[in-house]
Amino acid sequence: METQESYPLDVESIREDFPILDRKVGGDANAPGEGPDDDVPLVYLDNAATSQTPKRVVESLVDYYYGYNANVHRGIHHLSQEASVAYEEAHDRVAEFVGASGGREEIVFTKNTTEAENLVANSWGLEALGPGDSVVLTEMEHHASLVTWQQTAKKTGAEVRYIPVDDDGRLDMDRAAELIDDSTEMVSAVHVSNTLGTVNPVAELADLAHEQDAFVFVDAAQSVPNRPVDVEAIDADFFAFSAHKMCGPTGVGALYGKRHLLEEMEPHLYGGGHVRKVTFEDATWEELPWKFEAGTPNIADGIAFAEAIDYLDEIGMERVRRHEELLAEYAYDRLAEFDDIEIYGPPAGADRGGLVSFNLDGVHSHDLSTILSERGVAVRAGDHCTQPLHDKLGVPASTRASFYLYNTREEIDALVEGVDEARELFA
Amino acid sequence: METQESYPLDVESIREDFPILDRKVGGDANAPGEGPDDDVPLVYLDNAATSQTPKRVVESLVDYYYGYNANVHRGIHHLSQEASVAYEEAHDRVAEFVGASGGREEIVFTKNTTEAENLVANSWGLEALGPGDSVVLTEMEHHASLVTWQQTAKKTGAEVRYIPVDDDGRLDMDRAAELIDDSTEMVSAVHVSNTLGTVNPVAELADLAHEQDAFVFVDAAQSVPNRPVDVEAIDADFFAFSAHKMCGPTGVGALYGKRHLLEEMEPHLYGGGHVRKVTFEDATWEELPWKFEAGTPNIADGIAFAEAIDYLDEIGMERVRRHEELLAEYAYDRLAEFDDIEIYGPPAGADRGGLVSFNLDGVHSHDLSTILSERGVAVRAGDHCTQPLHDKLGVPASTRASFYLYNTREEIDALVEGVDEARELFA
Repeated sequence: METQESYPLDVESIREDFPILDRKVGGDANAPGEGPDDDVPLVYLDNAATSQTPKRVVESLVDYYYGYNANVHRGIHHLSQEASVAYEEAHDRVAEFVGASGGREEIVFTKNTTEAENLVANSWGLEALGPGDSVVLTEMEHHASLVTWQQTAKKTGAEVRYIPVDDDGRLDMDRAAELIDDSTEMVSAVHVSNTLGTVNPVAELADLAHEQDAFVFVDAAQSVPNRPVDVEAIDADFFAFSAHKMCGPTGVGALYGKRHLLEEMEPHLYGGGHVRKVTFEDATWEELPWKFEAGTPNIADGIAFAEAIDYLDEIGMERVRRHEELLAEYAYDRLAEFDDIEIYGPPAGADRGGLVSFNLDGVHSHDLSTILSERGVAVRAGDHCTQPLHDKLGVPASTRASFYLYNTREEIDALVEGVDEARELFA
Repeated sequence: METQESYPLDVESIREDFPILDRKVGGDANAPGEGPDDDVPLVYLDNAATSQTPKRVVESLVDYYYGYNANVHRGIHHLSQEASVAYEEAHDRVAEFVGASGGREEIVFTKNTTEAENLVANSWGLEALGPGDSVVLTEMEHHASLVTWQQTAKKTGAEVRYIPVDDDGRLDMDRAAELIDDSTEMVSAVHVSNTLGTVNPVAELADLAHEQDAFVFVDAAQSVPNRPVDVEAIDADFFAFSAHKMCGPTGVGALYGKRHLLEEMEPHLYGGGHVRKVTFEDATWEELPWKFEAGTPNIADGIAFAEAIDYLDEIGMERVRRHEELLAEYAYDRLAEFDDIEIYGPPAGADRGGLVSFNLDGVHSHDLSTILSERGVAVRAGDHCTQPLHDKLGVPASTRASFYLYNTREEIDALVEGVDEARELFA
């Protein structure tokens, strides 16, 4: 147990912040929150799908609805001013967390990372792209990026190119330097692969893009929750992530965009709250970021997003990263002991995030996941929204265990024991 | 006080469901939830902007995050199944509430009414509209509808026509019958005006549209929260509303669409969760309604939306409607006593919803609202996202008091006293 000592987080204390981690599961899965046979402790290893939510974030929702619920921007009365200040400052807090020195004007709240991708594809892509242009993606893109740019290219006549993934699950950067050429207008790359765990060299990709006067969009859904990030060090033009994967609520995400780019772009949604002057004939837009937030925004969850960031910041993102790295290394090593387990992505190390996707010979990931679930172990089975990557790997699906700041080595042991049981059952 | 007897709701009991209504306001408006001088009871008359949230809805959020928070659709483990069932059933509940017999397949959860408008404008409008086509709106459209269709028409070369509002704040239906002609592809009309309070004859507009093989989109943001509605009786093709105006959380709304129309339309957002098969080259879409819900949805708030509907349903929408009608009548009558007050919209009666917009001679609505706020009375001042309508009324702004199931006649008295004070101050 010596290695346990080097884990930088006080997990026992952290777990007290998450009431759901005390839950038992089993029995009737159709009864939300309880069942007749709820007798197995929950081992939650599905954090790349969504993270759990600490009390102070949930309490911030309660405080909002019981204390100062009101529509923002437009109200003079007390509640509206309180809600407006909190909602607007939440943008500043998000900006600060990812190193956006422009503050709120560079942070648009969206409903999720997917909307952020589509915002840029619609507002920038439909205008800027045309025949002869190329968009360069990676083979490990999440559908949020892959399908969005693929369909935007179809609409505009642009070409899509994919940077290949090598046998170790890393990008072929030599090919990247060839594929990104003077036809390229956009490079969209996932920062940390939600399937392979690979931490991609997005700053290098940004350099390659900028050398060709192309922009770079970083899908940071799996990086911002798990490691320190700095959008300006990466020199990302656009950068997107979701609250629900980083201790925040569902229903809100953020798009960072360089200010001059956001200023040049048209809104992707029209409505109230983002307009300056409207006549029967035409309209003009509000200042950033409100130009892109038409309609009543997700006020409560936006404020709770900032609370989640406060929580993570107090714990320290470098410590979160290191904790996950150690867990991933331990999981990788334990699973790699077995010849009948194939692990995808790079070996444990500095360029692997806190997740491990694998397959057990002869057992479909859905069956494996079901057996694990009966033991209380929540993992994800399927294609993890990376179908083309799975096609390339030659498998229809995989089982993914993903870790967060509240997970322990003992939970990984429970995972491995469940895999052992599946092996015996299907032998 | 005899008339008080005829109010159909037990408001005293209802108010206990809303902790915020016990709040006092005043003092430092920058401190969310409290201030150094919080000594005036809150009189919340800004319900058309957003309604307050009853305990059971807030508790449903807490139950979700502490009990079964997980990503939906794709997970096999217990939490994901519990969350999926609750989230999917919430769509059925919304469908039932508005009379959509097709169930969840006709209900898309959006982030707000605005996104629902833009969904149809993008998915249907950009494909279907072109030069020679017309979109018919009303002069009392909210910006969510007006700006969206105006800009979509600009992009496609279609023409926008506006059904005039007469001096009583009602639609000129004779002109509507002329404006809706064989060039018309879409009629988009607000069900209840958020400024005038007018209840529009949307079923008649649907008939006029359908006679010309046009579709009708009903902006129901101000009707679904306040009165019984039946999308099939109206024969609406599309119908949109938001949870946060009907005792639900911020960040979620619904688009009802006739099933065959939604089936024919392409997604407006691309990403994970709404795809069936994805290759590097192309993608196909999931079944309804998930086709339109790319990315991780607002799971917690979607489930809480259904809880809000349960709450309203148990109280009874016809009683909510009648309660608001009586309050609006009382407010109208009290304000109409003064020669220096101009009230907009139709006289109190069956075709007026639960709100009253007005101006006090010589006092800007922002000043009036500020004075009211100092007395704890929360109203809205401004153009209420209907700038062109205000231009037509010849005023830059108005003051709007809007009522909900927890409001009382005494609160309207407080409003009128505040107006009296403003009159004296500015005399």
